[in-house]
Amino acid sequence: MKELAKELSLSVGTVSKALSDSHEISDDTKKKVAETASRLNYTLNPYASSLRNKKSKTIAVVLPEVADNFFSLAINGIQSVAEKKGYHVLIYLSHEKFSNEKSILSECCSGRVDGVLISVSSETTDAQHILKLQQQNVPIVFFDREFEGLHIAKVITNDFECGYASATHLISNGCKNPVFLSISSSLGICNHRASGFKAALKDKKIADPEKAIIECRGTKEEVDWQIKNLLTGKTKPDGIVASVERLAMSVYLVSQQINISIPAELKVIVFSTLETAPILNPPLTTITQPAFEIGKTAAELLFKGIEKKKYNLFDEIITLPSVLIERTSSQPCQFKKK
Amino acid sequence: MKELAKELSLSVGTVSKALSDSHEISDDTKKKVAETASRLNYTLNPYASSLRNKKSKTIAVVLPEVADNFFSLAINGIQSVAEKKGYHVLIYLSHEKFSNEKSILSECCSGRVDGVLISVSSETTDAQHILKLQQQNVPIVFFDREFEGLHIAKVITNDFECGYASATHLISNGCKNPVFLSISSSLGICNHRASGFKAALKDKKIADPEKAIIECRGTKEEVDWQIKNLLTGKTKPDGIVASVERLAMSVYLVSQQINISIPAELKVIVFSTLETAPILNPPLTTITQPAFEIGKTAAELLFKGIEKKKYNLFDEIITLPSVLIERTSSQPCQFKKK
Repeated sequence: MKELAKELSLSVGTVSKALSDSHEISDDTKKKVAETASRLNYTLNPYASSLRNKKSKTIAVVLPEVADNFFSLAINGIQSVAEKKGYHVLIYLSHEKFSNEKSILSECCSGRVDGVLISVSSETTDAQHILKLQQQNVPIVFFDREFEGLHIAKVITNDFECGYASATHLISNGCKNPVFLSISSSLGICNHRASGFKAALKDKKIADPEKAIIECRGTKEEVDWQIKNLLTGKTKPDGIVASVERLAMSVYLVSQQINISIPAELKVIVFSTLETAPILNPPLTTITQPAFEIGKTAAELLFKGIEKKKYNLFDEIITLPSVLIERTSSQPCQFKKK
Repeated sequence: MKELAKELSLSVGTVSKALSDSHEISDDTKKKVAETASRLNYTLNPYASSLRNKKSKTIAVVLPEVADNFFSLAINGIQSVAEKKGYHVLIYLSHEKFSNEKSILSECCSGRVDGVLISVSSETTDAQHILKLQQQNVPIVFFDREFEGLHIAKVITNDFECGYASATHLISNGCKNPVFLSISSSLGICNHRASGFKAALKDKKIADPEKAIIECRGTKEEVDWQIKNLLTGKTKPDGIVASVERLAMSVYLVSQQINISIPAELKVIVFSTLETAPILNPPLTTITQPAFEIGKTAAELLFKGIEKKKYNLFDEIITLPSVLIERTSSQPCQFKKK
């Protein structure tokens, strides 16, 4: 910075203020300093600069995976807001592991980022790591996957209602033994979807609601194996609601391998924003979440918390509804394959 | 830190050394300090700490988008290496915009990250931002999408050969007028794939190679519109090789809308690791890149550069081959739909 000051015949203090965009310095001077800095290849050390002004101009997005259309669309929604605010978005993946999530959140403490948007992993059974971050006054907003029971802002969708609607849809299209595939019994969104599903089974007096919830965990291979067992077992279902995209993909791939015809022998619905749903064989019925909007709204909420120190982020809950889009995979069939 | 030292009856210097894992301090003391620090909710300020030890223990991955199976698999490969090294992975998305990429790389200067893995945007036509980062001695490795002509390490696939193989495959299955859909004429990988494609057309004396390369740019809606025009035009193709996943998805969606039958009227091949390829209607022929391996190898190369200061990363080029997986979408047809 001394070199810069010398080159420009300005004091080090003036250069420093110009570089940190101080209102004490004229726009002309700022421009001159910026040009010379660029010419001399001078870059602000972000760490030093962050120690001074306590803003990293960065938000973190912590989520389980990106190989899922919901999350990639939500990221686009978040980025659309951050870009306007001049913020960078750092994406951290937990890969559905609780240990990763803890280590990521401890990284997010102490000024590295100005706020955190988080969708918890399916393994997360404890909230100490989240509460610790909150105690350090880092604004936090949950999007989609919340950890329940905390006073933390959240943007979610109407999971219970959609779970109910998915079961009703399958039953009215002829299913006698529909099941719900969950990825975790500790994940709020999965439980809400499952509860709605069970409530519909109870209301319609179909099957045993408690036996209709099946948890599929593990690697891709393990999940495929579980689904294969389910579809070849004694009490094989005639309808499936998959709680996430990859479970539906697994149901399709396994059905193709073992020659189960969708929708004749098995009807399928998925909670997903899957872009390829209409071109799958057969086209897949989806409960489509407003993924982009969920990301956008969560980011807007987070910036309220970042910009207004005293803004109370704790009890904000925004629910954006999803819609059931009917396609071939859940249609009633006149002729059943033998 | 003073509080911590007082609590433990140690000097501030000892506590500081223990927290930064100095070899001067015994493991017992380190353990005691860590436990007390955790109990008192003390977190190392990463900025202050980074100023001291000049390691952020973080690498950046800069890429165009995550709504693409190639990139999400490559990220998994990168993360598998970083986890073992105890490094965090920050994902930055350029959203295919050159301006975003420049701003991201300027963020990566000055100690914020210890190394950068990058797949350039389709708009990137200038390498100043990359060279600037290299001048600051930040190790850089390209994966998949390189900026050509720079002395920077890279992990790529055999794009020219695969472009050649894709055209040969279409021609031998009956195509008289195959085209190649590119996303950018400035993107090395697209050009190599296109060059291979053109070389095969020339060798087989089929169509005009120069007219067979079609650039599809813009928003999703704009791309759909271009493809619709192409498929309803006078010289409509009977075969398409899509350079990236989303172009093939667009071809499928448009063909469904305007009732073009794949593969009877149009054969399709895509450069992609698309997991859903076998369950699309019809199953889609892919040139499948070793995406996980490309990410993993690029990360291993980057850590060589990070760990050995004098290791010459400049001229490393690793090529991992892709494979053509034949499915229904490119098969010859005995009966043509009228």
